[in-house]
Amino acid sequence: MSDAAFAPTEKTRIRRLNKRAVWDREAVYGVLDAGLACHVGYVIDGQPYVTPTAYARVGDRVFWHGSSASRMLRRLAEGVPVCFTVSLLDGIVHARSGFHSSFNYRSVMAFGEAAEVSDPDAKAQALEAIVERITPGRWADLRPMTDQELKATKVLSLELEEVACKIRDGGPNDDEEDYALPIWAGEVPIRMVMDEPVDDERLADGIAQPAYLKDTRLG
Amino acid sequence: MSDAAFAPTEKTRIRRLNKRAVWDREAVYGVLDAGLACHVGYVIDGQPYVTPTAYARVGDRVFWHGSSASRMLRRLAEGVPVCFTVSLLDGIVHARSGFHSSFNYRSVMAFGEAAEVSDPDAKAQALEAIVERITPGRWADLRPMTDQELKATKVLSLELEEVACKIRDGGPNDDEEDYALPIWAGEVPIRMVMDEPVDDERLADGIAQPAYLKDTRLG
Repeated sequence: MSDAAFAPTEKTRIRRLNKRAVWDREAVYGVLDAGLACHVGYVIDGQPYVTPTAYARVGDRVFWHGSSASRMLRRLAEGVPVCFTVSLLDGIVHARSGFHSSFNYRSVMAFGEAAEVSDPDAKAQALEAIVERITPGRWADLRPMTDQELKATKVLSLELEEVACKIRDGGPNDDEEDYALPIWAGEVPIRMVMDEPVDDERLADGIAQPAYLKDTRLG
Repeated sequence: MSDAAFAPTEKTRIRRLNKRAVWDREAVYGVLDAGLACHVGYVIDGQPYVTPTAYARVGDRVFWHGSSASRMLRRLAEGVPVCFTVSLLDGIVHARSGFHSSFNYRSVMAFGEAAEVSDPDAKAQALEAIVERITPGRWADLRPMTDQELKATKVLSLELEEVACKIRDGGPNDDEEDYALPIWAGEVPIRMVMDEPVDDERLADGIAQPAYLKDTRLG
């Protein structure tokens, strides 16, 4: 599937605040490519679980990974329905009333059945994508992956087909009569930053911090 | 319930990487009090949904809110099982192998049935807690809430009883033989910051930014 826009479905039709809905595929990919961690929702015996984890988008799929021993990943590999959510907080919106106060945010919810990636090459490519997503340039520096490590890692993917995306930005939307009130209103922008990298205590002698660390992508 | 520690259950027993598990109630509350947004997982007709939203902890409960018209909140008010998750990213852990690379993070998963808060005073207190959680001092400045707004807002709460918490910090844990490799390893700490507040375009004349904005709590 490579349409320019996602089609709303019963699950993804955004019932409320429809003006915040985003259907354009490139815009949705922009949000997915900005997130560092996703929250994967799944169900075991009627009980929902929500697990935060690293991920990457490649084309029209997202990939995430974990231990082959993990309960979540074993379950997901069976092809159960998942909700793959990425949300980014961009600001605190101070309206003149609590009712209209809000966050600015970008969020994506993707629905479908997760599929296990079992082909070793495809698996290795997905793991490379996850590493490179966060720190472009890192993969080439790493000690190469062993067959045993590849076996001990489960990789799951979800096709981006049924997707809801919402973006809120800008200042508050107050009730018309509230604009005259002597109350400060506006937005406090928030974002992630990185601090100085910290060398591992057991770093071998004479190893400098790689230049690519400054390219770390925080969203 | 006010024990000093949460008791592991079948759902919360942390099967993997058990050294990262945290059971102390105050430590878990510390993580919950540091988060700005939660991810609430719930199930409709076998389909999991994961919704990011604002929240606050008050005592041994967490509270979140939304429109009375919201599908999620109507469903949750019926007392269905939820998974309430808060996760905070604290750093990128660069090990010498991809296999041992990781995030530093703090995460909480709480399980139970959400209850609707219907008493108007309790509802107002929960909404105040959510506002004050993010920006202490803001609630007193806001235009007071109307009965109609209170009616249009649904507030849900979850007792913190069945809780799993994991915290990872520090540098990488590499395979012993990898420490000698000429590969940089360490941690890139990450955190949220706020930028300069932006006045609403329609701000009434002569209103300065309140001093309490600098106390905004980003976790």
